[in-house]
Amino acid sequence: MRCDVVAIGTELLLGQIVDTNSEWIGEQLAIAGVDSHFQVKVGDNLRRIVLALRESLARSDAVIACGGLGPTQDDITREAIAEVLNVPLRRDPALVDRVRNMFQARGRQMSDNNLRQADVPEGATIIPQVRGTAPGLICPVGHKVIYAVPGVPQEMEEMVLRAVLPDLQARSGATATIRSRTLRTWGLAESALAEVVGPRLEALERAGNPTIAFLASGIEGIKVRITAKAGDEAADRALLDAEESELRALLGDVVFGVDDETMEAAVARLLIDAGLSLGLAESLTGGLVGARLTAVPGASDWFRGSIVAYDSAVKHRLLGVPDGPVVSEQAALAMATGSAKVLAADVGLGVTGVAGPTEQDGQPVGTVWMGLAMDGEADAVRVQLPGDRDRIRQFAAISLLDLLRRRLLGRK
Amino acid sequence: MRCDVVAIGTELLLGQIVDTNSEWIGEQLAIAGVDSHFQVKVGDNLRRIVLALRESLARSDAVIACGGLGPTQDDITREAIAEVLNVPLRRDPALVDRVRNMFQARGRQMSDNNLRQADVPEGATIIPQVRGTAPGLICPVGHKVIYAVPGVPQEMEEMVLRAVLPDLQARSGATATIRSRTLRTWGLAESALAEVVGPRLEALERAGNPTIAFLASGIEGIKVRITAKAGDEAADRALLDAEESELRALLGDVVFGVDDETMEAAVARLLIDAGLSLGLAESLTGGLVGARLTAVPGASDWFRGSIVAYDSAVKHRLLGVPDGPVVSEQAALAMATGSAKVLAADVGLGVTGVAGPTEQDGQPVGTVWMGLAMDGEADAVRVQLPGDRDRIRQFAAISLLDLLRRRLLGRK
Repeated sequence: MRCDVVAIGTELLLGQIVDTNSEWIGEQLAIAGVDSHFQVKVGDNLRRIVLALRESLARSDAVIACGGLGPTQDDITREAIAEVLNVPLRRDPALVDRVRNMFQARGRQMSDNNLRQADVPEGATIIPQVRGTAPGLICPVGHKVIYAVPGVPQEMEEMVLRAVLPDLQARSGATATIRSRTLRTWGLAESALAEVVGPRLEALERAGNPTIAFLASGIEGIKVRITAKAGDEAADRALLDAEESELRALLGDVVFGVDDETMEAAVARLLIDAGLSLGLAESLTGGLVGARLTAVPGASDWFRGSIVAYDSAVKHRLLGVPDGPVVSEQAALAMATGSAKVLAADVGLGVTGVAGPTEQDGQPVGTVWMGLAMDGEADAVRVQLPGDRDRIRQFAAISLLDLLRRRLLGRK
Repeated sequence: MRCDVVAIGTELLLGQIVDTNSEWIGEQLAIAGVDSHFQVKVGDNLRRIVLALRESLARSDAVIACGGLGPTQDDITREAIAEVLNVPLRRDPALVDRVRNMFQARGRQMSDNNLRQADVPEGATIIPQVRGTAPGLICPVGHKVIYAVPGVPQEMEEMVLRAVLPDLQARSGATATIRSRTLRTWGLAESALAEVVGPRLEALERAGNPTIAFLASGIEGIKVRITAKAGDEAADRALLDAEESELRALLGDVVFGVDDETMEAAVARLLIDAGLSLGLAESLTGGLVGARLTAVPGASDWFRGSIVAYDSAVKHRLLGVPDGPVVSEQAALAMATGSAKVLAADVGLGVTGVAGPTEQDGQPVGTVWMGLAMDGEADAVRVQLPGDRDRIRQFAAISLLDLLRRRLLGRK
């Protein structure tokens, strides 16, 4: 089963919006075991949308057309599909009522343009909308099919998961289910990770199910994705559970989270489990670490606050950093113990370093000292980080969170 | 002149990487006045790359093929172009030397695979690489042309600007130059902005040059892009300067920056001009404001630091916030004056509010108080922000920076 994606919208071609819809659909198709060999962006032009749809139908079994279902004159995906199918558009009375009622319920005036959203190519099935006002379409073309979904990401995602993927799988006659799980890692380069997991990778390649793929994700580390293809969901889950255990045995505490779990969420969980509160002192990160931690809902239960001591005088006065260079072991130690004390927290973390663009106190760009104070002890670690100012700051933030995560794990 | 973009890489189709290259190229083509009607993603498969290139050549005058020029077996863009052109690949001796020398200079072992980067389809011109190891290609096909550029964004961007766009413009015989400038705004909704600029927009639509477009950019406000098309660069610049003045007269201090200038850079410039230092007190933003300000190189000249007082006790103890509700005018005022005092700064800013997911002290989610202390006076402003936890925090951060920006402007 092969399915193209056609993203429709002139703003996509002009670089005004990044086409993240195709990326999301591509990932869902891959997980569902459907091949997507071509993905196309085309503007709001009838002749060209028709051409793009025809080309996609010629090379694939299915096409997901994304966008151009709104109420304005620019939204012509319905017309284009009708032309490809060589059928007329018919205004669906039930859809007309639905659009009218929606406007009435919101107390808003409806222009007649909105009724265009009730137009359906003859022979097509409607995918009822649950968010927004634009219904989707399932349009059979011989033994092939065109799906139309809205361009608004949340509306599109909901409709693809609810109606498009199940229809695609039914058409493909696939009885296998496909399920994946992602282990998120920090602290090993891709080559080192590949070496550690190597033997397991070879064994799996011989067996063929589940499979493993690496995905380097920059400042979020490297993801290890396990994909299982079995007869049913329970069998998939059993395969994923078994493989996760195998990989965790090899990778140990390099794995910090599963699927969407962020580093800050992992730290939050460990702090809550240990019943500990946290205080920070940040220098080169300027607030990045605090911002990440407070992105976790409920952070006020365990996060006391952060002293962003960007100016050296603030480090000395508020945190008790001794006179001398502020990118140093002594400074990181004092920032960790000082933040715990000033913020009345159980655990104190401090980070100081040189983000660039120029060196500082004779220390090269990328030099970072991280301090940790916990259980009456304090120590500091030095790392040398690569990249430009932004990357060094981001790497410093996640490195500091990872240091805390490992220490909390070790404390258990 | 019409130019397709073909982005090559299986990881693009699987949703593992967002194709930002096509977006960037699309924007550059639009600015250069070249139409880009179709943009395609295709995987690392010879037959399918060949098909995508042929289809693009059939409907357009030029194709930019992006990616697949590296040294590995997956990188087969050179082979695909040779097949489309129906010519052999020839190994270029000068390129071979260059690749060898690069490895020698870095003291690294070179595998023979790397020499594939010296393969050139017969009749093609080389675009010498200045970053990375992969040269680009200009491959004429009759009166049409295929360009090949690397998939690494920095290498691609440099090569497109240096070699591809000039070649495209020379081929199109275009004598007009196109240049655009973007005014970045904060504080007006798109409909209000359109109303203010309305009369100017109508006048320009009649004249046709320059043109104006709005681009809603979420938490970065709304961009107003002016595009001028004239006989030469000086004439373009004169048109842009004149139009910028017209728009600034209508929009006033709603415009915070031009082109890539961020809100934090605008604030930094104003603080430096005024010779003032800044201290912060953040609550719901958790460090976001400090992180944005310290992203500006040289921030240590004017940024003292931030007290991220997430815990109420920290607000009371460190910042002198009076007992009582911490999402309030009194709290915002105390945070502003307290931060200036504790951090020994000329200007103090404070922000407190309810990011959600649940209400706090009877205040609904999205309630935000911002305080500003400067020149011996302090006041506070209340805003009600829309969206989820992340959006409220981001909106609060830029709103606070904008408040400071307007006050610094008013002080002049």
